[in-house]
Amino acid sequence: MAPAGLLDAFWGYERALMANDLVALDGFFAPGPQTLRADAGGILVGHDAISAFRRGRGGAPARTIGDVHVRRITDDTAVVIAQTLPSTGGRGQQTQVWCRTTDGSWVIEAAHVSQPAAAIAAAVWRVVGSPLVAGAASGPLVGQTVAVKDLFAVAGFATGAGVPAFLAARAPAGDNATVVAELLAAGASVQGIAQTDEFAYSIAGRNAHYGTPPNGAVPGAIPGGSSSGPASAVALGQASIGLGTDTGGSIRVPASYQGLWGLRTTHGAVSRAGMLPLAPSFDTVGWLTRDAATLELAASVSVDAAAQRSLEPSFVVDPSLVALATPEVQAAFASAVAGLSVTSVDLGDPDELVEAFRVTQAAEAWMSDGAWVDAHPGALGSDIAARFAVAKGITEGQALAGASAFDGARAHLDRVLGDRILLLPSASSAAPSTTAEGAELEAIRGSTLRLTCIAGITGRPALSVPLMTVPVETTAAAPVGLCLVGPRYSDLALIALGAALMAPLVE
Amino acid sequence: MAPAGLLDAFWGYERALMANDLVALDGFFAPGPQTLRADAGGILVGHDAISAFRRGRGGAPARTIGDVHVRRITDDTAVVIAQTLPSTGGRGQQTQVWCRTTDGSWVIEAAHVSQPAAAIAAAVWRVVGSPLVAGAASGPLVGQTVAVKDLFAVAGFATGAGVPAFLAARAPAGDNATVVAELLAAGASVQGIAQTDEFAYSIAGRNAHYGTPPNGAVPGAIPGGSSSGPASAVALGQASIGLGTDTGGSIRVPASYQGLWGLRTTHGAVSRAGMLPLAPSFDTVGWLTRDAATLELAASVSVDAAAQRSLEPSFVVDPSLVALATPEVQAAFASAVAGLSVTSVDLGDPDELVEAFRVTQAAEAWMSDGAWVDAHPGALGSDIAARFAVAKGITEGQALAGASAFDGARAHLDRVLGDRILLLPSASSAAPSTTAEGAELEAIRGSTLRLTCIAGITGRPALSVPLMTVPVETTAAAPVGLCLVGPRYSDLALIALGAALMAPLVE
Repeated sequence: MAPAGLLDAFWGYERALMANDLVALDGFFAPGPQTLRADAGGILVGHDAISAFRRGRGGAPARTIGDVHVRRITDDTAVVIAQTLPSTGGRGQQTQVWCRTTDGSWVIEAAHVSQPAAAIAAAVWRVVGSPLVAGAASGPLVGQTVAVKDLFAVAGFATGAGVPAFLAARAPAGDNATVVAELLAAGASVQGIAQTDEFAYSIAGRNAHYGTPPNGAVPGAIPGGSSSGPASAVALGQASIGLGTDTGGSIRVPASYQGLWGLRTTHGAVSRAGMLPLAPSFDTVGWLTRDAATLELAASVSVDAAAQRSLEPSFVVDPSLVALATPEVQAAFASAVAGLSVTSVDLGDPDELVEAFRVTQAAEAWMSDGAWVDAHPGALGSDIAARFAVAKGITEGQALAGASAFDGARAHLDRVLGDRILLLPSASSAAPSTTAEGAELEAIRGSTLRLTCIAGITGRPALSVPLMTVPVETTAAAPVGLCLVGPRYSDLALIALGAALMAPLVE
Repeated sequence: MAPAGLLDAFWGYERALMANDLVALDGFFAPGPQTLRADAGGILVGHDAISAFRRGRGGAPARTIGDVHVRRITDDTAVVIAQTLPSTGGRGQQTQVWCRTTDGSWVIEAAHVSQPAAAIAAAVWRVVGSPLVAGAASGPLVGQTVAVKDLFAVAGFATGAGVPAFLAARAPAGDNATVVAELLAAGASVQGIAQTDEFAYSIAGRNAHYGTPPNGAVPGAIPGGSSSGPASAVALGQASIGLGTDTGGSIRVPASYQGLWGLRTTHGAVSRAGMLPLAPSFDTVGWLTRDAATLELAASVSVDAAAQRSLEPSFVVDPSLVALATPEVQAAFASAVAGLSVTSVDLGDPDELVEAFRVTQAAEAWMSDGAWVDAHPGALGSDIAARFAVAKGITEGQALAGASAFDGARAHLDRVLGDRILLLPSASSAAPSTTAEGAELEAIRGSTLRLTCIAGITGRPALSVPLMTVPVETTAAAPVGLCLVGPRYSDLALIALGAALMAPLVE
């Protein structure tokens, strides 16, 4: 038997939910900082966080209630678990713990809501199979599942680059990209083709057409990009290997934001055949995984071991780069490198370095995609369109000066770094909120690119290790990557070194 | 602050769960018939049901616990919501309502468990996209999403027929099957290619390779087949239209088991171009939907309206067919037709009718697939392999006699039925449990085929309307379809009639 008044409150809440009566809904949840609400996005703590969530979502999906089960605890406490029947089909479950207040009204102390699963997480994947492409029956990667960024050819599928209008006119690929073929030959299967920022020209992880993939580590945060789909797929447990690209941070930033291992390989060390270019002077292949062992397995099938070199653990830090990070990230970084013998270096003015990167990147991006972008006005989201507009505006003189600056910066950085390993944060902050304004994201992008461009300019491999955390509002701790930039062709040694750094933390 | 002893109990439960210590786990859940446990599969009611579930699953997936949040209600009651971190990646949520018993120990009164979503429900879908194939920008089906049974050609994809070894050797289809093309031209998009029983030669909905799709209406029950994937996709809200086939009940049985609308069309009225055959004398195209309006829209794009006829609502029932159903279904059927003017007819011995159907079906199934089955020993699940072995054993003499019996039965049934509408249950029972033994499923199949074969033999259209429910152990009520078998070319009129029958119930 339900306690008196409980079911009236239950149905009153349901009516308020369907009417999106925010004031009434706030009243149905117990006040205070310990009220709880869980759903697939995560756990919200406190009445204010729950109220803010409700204000942000614009109403719950339309539904009716099926079976209602009441577990009475006392006259003043009961659990109600109800079947929810969304108008779009399927069945969900909703648990509410109700208590009667001193004035006799019933309020919810904790709730847990489950929606029926979608056929596909469209923000994460463009197409997915069971598997989409089966791998070889034997090999080191048997049992591994790959989320292939939608920049790589998968035989039989058109490559979409995150742009539906581009996809619509593409023919299916006849062959797999070399790196895709290598993963398949080693026994991995292709789980699906995962989303990317449009033409990979962003590090945010938002896509105007397919939506923003969820951050698997920080509820309500952007995933990082442009390898956003592969990163989220791996963080969400929907694939074990994300195959991505990194031009200006597109592996390292999502790895940092989602607590993954991510390797940007030495420029030119891994075949880019079958991969759409963005800025060939910087474009590299890379992988995202949840652990070092899987990253090592994935990298080993495409990195030529004979061309690889060993590493001395000689670390350098440039304080002016670290200073670009948020205070929380700076503190986490100081703590992460505290046990290491580290030499300070001065790599030069970060503004000049990033400019040397940006001009050549933009000029090459326009060469890669400009004709298509010009011919398809309105086909891109406004942020990416604006970036291409800037790229289009680069004059021949600017491009030549940029190329010269790039050459100079590369020579200078190589001279300063030598065979040593540069340590820096993989991104300047933890993952920003999906509700961050464009200007805030641009500022974060600016700081992060100053960190990531060092590997871009030098063509050096860069490994992001999920070694740091910082406090954020929405969860106990958000990940930030520790980035190791090694000499060229130290890719595999970097992974081993990163695993050694991580080992004391996971014992 | 957590009440004293609560967190010890929480961690004790977690250790017992990871060790799959069933006795300890039983002890952690409060005894009695009102203890609750919800997950994506549904809501379990009572300690015994929860205990039986745990005994059936063979251990929970390995995981660790992330953030733990406690909402204290009283000194003796608290809610714990914890983040779960499966070893396979992603994050889940787990809510437990704990109470202290009179002896001071803590027990769980209610629990709600959410696992992270998989990339794809592999038992339901072979491949899925966002969308997989976009439909025309305008038309009556814009906004509709189609789950295409893996018997129909989708351009660019091989057709797999539920058999991985068959799929592996197939070339991608150059063109869409006609019915697929018609749906796309009308504005529907293809959400994906959905699973089928192997070569569509079953009505159970189990597949030895891809697993058993969940029944969207009855937790723990088989989905019905062979259009199992499309039916589950629609019932789960993962598509709005299931495109399937019906030879001996493959639309009607899953519709009945999952509470869907399902139409088996008049034999020959809808193009089968691009559809793999099973038994061409009986094979038809059909659709599964959650409501009559969508079914009418889907059917209208492929059924030639000019060739359609109208219907007089003149109903007949054959008591000897209805008697094949379970007592619960018979009672529901009596109640469903109670308001209708119904004439009793005698269609003949159900055993003879089903035999006339089965022999020709088997002989044709062997013609369709026998050469492949012979060449690939071990490629099929044991139940389907056994069915093909029987089909292979049919002698020429038996086939000739069967064809003659089929012709006779068809003429006889047409004579008795005339232009009237035969009412009968779509299946002999509600959906059986996934744990049912093979012999039990064979018996159910035998009874159901005696009901479904009438439309098969006569080539008449048959509509399954989700108009009945029967009580079952696992849920408040399980659906059973009311089947309307109309004269040939009354497909669209049948849908309208079914909607009229349903209307009073949904007001």
